Amino acid sequence: MKSRVFSRLKSFASCCNFMSIFSRPTAVNLSDAAIKLKEIISKAASTVTVPESVFQAYIEAAEIMLDDDVATNKAIGSHGANFLQHQQNNSKRLSVLTHCNTGSLATAGYGTALGVIRALHAQGVLERAYCTETRPFNQGSRLTAFELVHEKIPATLIADSAAAALMKEGRVDAVIVGADRVTANGDTANKIGTYSLALCAMHHHIPFYVAAPLTSVDLSLSSGQEIVIEERSAKELLHTRGGLGEQVAASGISVWNPAFDVTPANLIAGIITEKGVITKNDMKDDAFDIKDFIEKATGKSTV
Amino acid sequence: MKSRVFSRLKSFASCCNFMSIFSRPTAVNLSDAAIKLKEIISKAASTVTVPESVFQAYIEAAEIMLDDDVATNKAIGSHGANFLQHQQNNSKRLSVLTHCNTGSLATAGYGTALGVIRALHAQGVLERAYCTETRPFNQGSRLTAFELVHEKIPATLIADSAAAALMKEGRVDAVIVGADRVTANGDTANKIGTYSLALCAMHHHIPFYVAAPLTSVDLSLSSGQEIVIEERSAKELLHTRGGLGEQVAASGISVWNPAFDVTPANLIAGIITEKGVITKNDMKDDAFDIKDFIEKATGKSTV
Repeated sequence: MKSRVFSRLKSFASCCNFMSIFSRPTAVNLSDAAIKLKEIISKAASTVTVPESVFQAYIEAAEIMLDDDVATNKAIGSHGANFLQHQQNNSKRLSVLTHCNTGSLATAGYGTALGVIRALHAQGVLERAYCTETRPFNQGSRLTAFELVHEKIPATLIADSAAAALMKEGRVDAVIVGADRVTANGDTANKIGTYSLALCAMHHHIPFYVAAPLTSVDLSLSSGQEIVIEERSAKELLHTRGGLGEQVAASGISVWNPAFDVTPANLIAGIITEKGVITKNDMKDDAFDIKDFIEKATGKSTV
Repeated sequence: MKSRVFSRLKSFASCCNFMSIFSRPTAVNLSDAAIKLKEIISKAASTVTVPESVFQAYIEAAEIMLDDDVATNKAIGSHGANFLQHQQNNSKRLSVLTHCNTGSLATAGYGTALGVIRALHAQGVLERAYCTETRPFNQGSRLTAFELVHEKIPATLIADSAAAALMKEGRVDAVIVGADRVTANGDTANKIGTYSLALCAMHHHIPFYVAAPLTSVDLSLSSGQEIVIEERSAKELLHTRGGLGEQVAASGISVWNPAFDVTPANLIAGIITEKGVITKNDMKDDAFDIKDFIEKATGKSTV
């Protein structure tokens, strides 16, 4: 019995290892969480005599992580909503454009960019949320649209390519997206299409924000040039339902299907975190000093 | 018998009337062609005594229009390919990004923007054509991709939202799109997403061209602000196959689905026509002088 439990413990640790090594290269916080859970398993295994206690320690740690994640998201929502209202001089209700899914279905609960939208709505200052379809996997039209309808938030779905026209019509006051990984200078890897939205926002003088927990910051990377971008199956564009449905595209065509792109810091007006909003001295600066922000916010050295 | 033929003639003229009035507001040349055919029917009906001769005159006129359209497209292709090579100092093979479908399937034959790509390929100077999926109706992944594969042109399909990332990687030397309507100053209405591509191209210092016959120019409109944009059914985003297939988006979400957007002339490097490429004195000028170009090219006054 004991050996069976230890064998399961070993495969548990292997799973954490797998997740930390093979999670998508952009997703720094998934990798971090897996490493932390593996450490908890190792530590518990070395100090307790009953194998079941290791599982108990694991479950307790995972539950704390879950609570922390929701609290972090709510803090992001609150900081973001307050900051946005302040930036707009509290003068009117805001319409916000978002991309991909960053809500309860993508996080432990509440959401990051969608958390800010929820908070704006809860405070009665959201005019409308616009969500992109987010091709080719349709996280926007399937997941974000579902959450917005479910939460009774006034919301409109658009094709990714319609974002610039929407901005030109003056219907967007801010763009808020999530992040898979933020490098030390603020360059941000996020779902493909984010970079295009940031360029269009800049042209229309619309502030572009990234909403992400500090666990998404990877200070070991100095800039976005060091981020490896995952390329996904051609099937996602050739077939419906993310590659599982019927073929819709012409047979024989080659496909380039990067899952992410990198938005440089100079296009980002602020990074909304659970500790507050990181800004630049000058909007047009090429970089944020995230290390400095974290050290001041946490009172700890990041070295 | 004679009265039956005259009755068919009348309904023929009604069809032309319908096409000229109810063709999409952006599509100036479809409306023009319908008006011309109606004039031919009226003229023939007033001069011939045998009703069948009216049909004969109609068919002959339509066949001439078809031949003219193909010749026009081939001239666009040739002018465009020569101009692009000259602009690039003939130094290397070119990669071109296009949007929507502007090939044999959208025109009478050969194509406009796709005509330029065909001509570049025929001259052996095309490195690769990139085509966008063109949501929500997928004209790019269904039609353009089909034509490119059929013509054995090296080609790659991308999501609309991946265009900016593709440009950032240095993989695009020029963007060429078609036009539904070009106003007197060069502002261009074209498939939704064109404006976004033009903004991204400008940021990456990639020249952005419109390829269109002079019949797409509407000198009666001074700028793009006067162009009415058609909005289409929400179903195109909510369901697969342009609204006819299974539902993929969340139920209850509102949709904004404009079929076109307007790209301002200041983002356009040149308008490739059958009479040559219309350029501006300064790339950053806000307007083209298309009236002047047409008068010089045709030797006729446009008034």
